[in-house]
Amino acid sequence: MANESSAPDSGNVVWHHATVTRERREAMNRHRSAILWFTGLSGAGKSTLAHAVEEHLYRIGCRTFVLDGDNVRHGLCGDLGFSAEDRVENIRRVGEVAKLFMEAGVVVLTAFISPFREDRNKVRAMVQPGEFIEIYCQCPIDVCERRDTKGLYKKARMGEITQFTGISSAYEPPGAPELVLNTAEMDLQDCVQKVMQVLLKNGSL
Amino acid sequence: MANESSAPDSGNVVWHHATVTRERREAMNRHRSAILWFTGLSGAGKSTLAHAVEEHLYRIGCRTFVLDGDNVRHGLCGDLGFSAEDRVENIRRVGEVAKLFMEAGVVVLTAFISPFREDRNKVRAMVQPGEFIEIYCQCPIDVCERRDTKGLYKKARMGEITQFTGISSAYEPPGAPELVLNTAEMDLQDCVQKVMQVLLKNGSL
Repeated sequence: MANESSAPDSGNVVWHHATVTRERREAMNRHRSAILWFTGLSGAGKSTLAHAVEEHLYRIGCRTFVLDGDNVRHGLCGDLGFSAEDRVENIRRVGEVAKLFMEAGVVVLTAFISPFREDRNKVRAMVQPGEFIEIYCQCPIDVCERRDTKGLYKKARMGEITQFTGISSAYEPPGAPELVLNTAEMDLQDCVQKVMQVLLKNGSL
Repeated sequence: MANESSAPDSGNVVWHHATVTRERREAMNRHRSAILWFTGLSGAGKSTLAHAVEEHLYRIGCRTFVLDGDNVRHGLCGDLGFSAEDRVENIRRVGEVAKLFMEAGVVVLTAFISPFREDRNKVRAMVQPGEFIEIYCQCPIDVCERRDTKGLYKKARMGEITQFTGISSAYEPPGAPELVLNTAEMDLQDCVQKVMQVLLKNGSL
């Protein structure tokens, strides 16, 4: 330590940079890291599906982490609201954190409405081709509204929530997602299997 | 999925919440998660030490991640500068991300000057007692300045960098850190061993 900044020919073993690389972590974990990016309307099943996929991955020994409103909106993004500007910043931060988890060798699953195509594509551009797996949870808004698991559609219809995606704020569906799941019709475990097939096909597992 | 919001007596197996808990991750990893928070002046050896500890932890099979200026300042906190206000926000975000990594079962090591006591204590308060391990890299400023590994002290003295910790901005040493390392005198590997002793003593490993 005393010689930290001394010449390279110092006999001391000194690390200045990360020696534990993503590749070494992946070797230890025996799977590759990836971002599974779930997008869709409120109530489309993003979070439920992300957690079900995570449970499956855990059981086969994978390192995983789910980023969703529950653990991000109250913490890291607790200073942000739901204006268009704040939504952009929210997704930017989620993308940056997802990238860190990917560097850590983890299969990270994100479950945010993430309504704007440009923001999702920015995250895609932050990582290497094949590492960002966009999964569109496609569900008609009337089905989402009938479920209304969080009571948010009711509040939005009553005007208690403004800028609500699908009602008073736009949702832009993905142009070319890696996977489209019709979450109004499909069984949860069938959805999980579809996601697993994508991970197997792209060599993550 | 179609029955996601149906009654609890539905025969479908539906997860709404995280089933892969921190405890299950820790069981899989065979170690507990923790935050190793390195603090000290620029050039005190925080990053070098964090990476050396990480290398050691990797070799004994631990899941780790280092958060430092290299992977945070250009990404997640790329919108922040070095004003007092931005430093506070920087450390807040780093704390929130460290907490997420801890939930993910990882030993997370942070290497930021983090000059303000109050900000570090806020992160400490975010987690359970014993999970936040504050490591003060104590090094006289003249030693840091002589090393000047990044050439920052020179720029600060010439007025090219304002609000530079130790010169034009305050550094508040920890009041009761879990570990103090005299990085001007100690050997790097001795420092690593001291950190390992703390992790062993508090039951993380």
